[in-house]
Amino acid sequence: MDFAKRLHKRILEVNSRVCLGIDPRPYGHPSTHPDQFEGDSAQVAKAVVNYFREIIEATQDLVACYKPQSAFFEAMGIPGLVAMAQLIADIKSLGIPVILDAKRGDIGSTAEAYAGAYLTNTVFAADALTVNPYLGMDSLEPFIQAAQANERGIFVLVKTSNPGSNDFQGLETLENMYVYDHVAYQLGHINRSLTQGSYGPVGAVVGATHPEELEHLREVMPQSILLVPGYGAQGGTAEDIVAAFDEEGLGAIISSSRGLSYFDEPDETATRARAATLQMRDEINEAIGLL
Amino acid sequence: MDFAKRLHKRILEVNSRVCLGIDPRPYGHPSTHPDQFEGDSAQVAKAVVNYFREIIEATQDLVACYKPQSAFFEAMGIPGLVAMAQLIADIKSLGIPVILDAKRGDIGSTAEAYAGAYLTNTVFAADALTVNPYLGMDSLEPFIQAAQANERGIFVLVKTSNPGSNDFQGLETLENMYVYDHVAYQLGHINRSLTQGSYGPVGAVVGATHPEELEHLREVMPQSILLVPGYGAQGGTAEDIVAAFDEEGLGAIISSSRGLSYFDEPDETATRARAATLQMRDEINEAIGLL
Repeated sequence: MDFAKRLHKRILEVNSRVCLGIDPRPYGHPSTHPDQFEGDSAQVAKAVVNYFREIIEATQDLVACYKPQSAFFEAMGIPGLVAMAQLIADIKSLGIPVILDAKRGDIGSTAEAYAGAYLTNTVFAADALTVNPYLGMDSLEPFIQAAQANERGIFVLVKTSNPGSNDFQGLETLENMYVYDHVAYQLGHINRSLTQGSYGPVGAVVGATHPEELEHLREVMPQSILLVPGYGAQGGTAEDIVAAFDEEGLGAIISSSRGLSYFDEPDETATRARAATLQMRDEINEAIGLL
Repeated sequence: MDFAKRLHKRILEVNSRVCLGIDPRPYGHPSTHPDQFEGDSAQVAKAVVNYFREIIEATQDLVACYKPQSAFFEAMGIPGLVAMAQLIADIKSLGIPVILDAKRGDIGSTAEAYAGAYLTNTVFAADALTVNPYLGMDSLEPFIQAAQANERGIFVLVKTSNPGSNDFQGLETLENMYVYDHVAYQLGHINRSLTQGSYGPVGAVVGATHPEELEHLREVMPQSILLVPGYGAQGGTAEDIVAAFDEEGLGAIISSSRGLSYFDEPDETATRARAATLQMRDEINEAIGLL
């Protein structure tokens, strides 16, 4: 079953559009981190695995998918990458889709190597990968081919949720379109060429902090599943993301990381994660009329 | 000593502007690969380390720097990343600058995590890192801060050497500038704010296949060291890259990977690598009048 069908099946099974982001932040944020994140990097990585295993255990019936953020694992060196592989394996063993947020992008055989690392059967392989389009459509091609061949997906950065996203994504071109529109139209074109009306393997990342853009981009890419970050900690609300969904309440997943996994109090993390995820699931479902 | 000074000192010491790219391609290119790249991933990774140690040994007095391409190591899983750490350590122990080509980019604390992984003192830390600007200037800020604080550098993708680079980088904006010009002007501005006339920590990647763009971008970013890929296998010649250098023959490094490390014949790789590197070094020096 292809990635889009698999993800939609999961969304319908659990009636959840929540993508729970796994962003282990063992250093530098003491107020939101439990004491257990101490020691050498191997100990810290082990503590990270235990911490998120508890959260996964507590939220597994409430989420559409999990999204590990590669950067935080890379920052822990080799033990961090072992931890990432372990958590990816855990999530897969539960039959839950996993999106690796690594924002890779390069040309030719280098892009092929990234696609091989993340969209085949290696220890880091996920159901889908986030990808950066700056290098152009030929840089996306190896990812699209791997996604098609292996029933995986990609989520291409189109318009992100940070203030600086206007610097280059938001430049207006001679065609009176924004740069991100050009990306979006190309992605729309590719999915049309790959699938007959249904959702294709080429999804898009569109920030929740720009609701009117979300509506426009939903129209431009009717066959792209949208990965919408920026909910919660970054300021997006349930009302902001209604436009991401199609009329059946499909076609989008809403991501939150800190808000679902780090809390001011260091105890009862699993219970707090479950409560926060349940609340977010219901807020989204209520906003789109599916509660 | 800051990264730009360190790199220029090295260039002058060996009179070389060659950046030797380390792109281990153990699979899928049989005609250019020696038999030793066989076995399980740990064996392959070990063979990769041995293969490139020989090449480093044979070329260490002929190159300005080495540039491992992270994608190929990531594709080998955990043993591949151990191999990358080993080669980075080897190169550092020779006192030669190492640029990690990983094209990372993300926002806020995620970009901080990448900067922590690659521009501090972890096992993957390099002298400089390639970075993707699509997410905007706030996404570059953590990399710039880490580079400043730790005497490292970054090379921001401005205009790449692939045909698809025109898709988004080459869009023309209402200001009658290309998207990549906007990136370049911003980088020029940052270096001016960080340093007094000399080269700053914010370099740029500009492809060798567009010589007239190279000349223009050299002017726009007079304080950016340019990392110029596309030489050799991708079609760029010594004449194409003259414009990348300042009048003292500094301010740029020219990168080649396959052309300096993989050969049609599987034997005497070290000897062939030395000969190819020597030839490239001299071609560049001759073209800029410093042979």
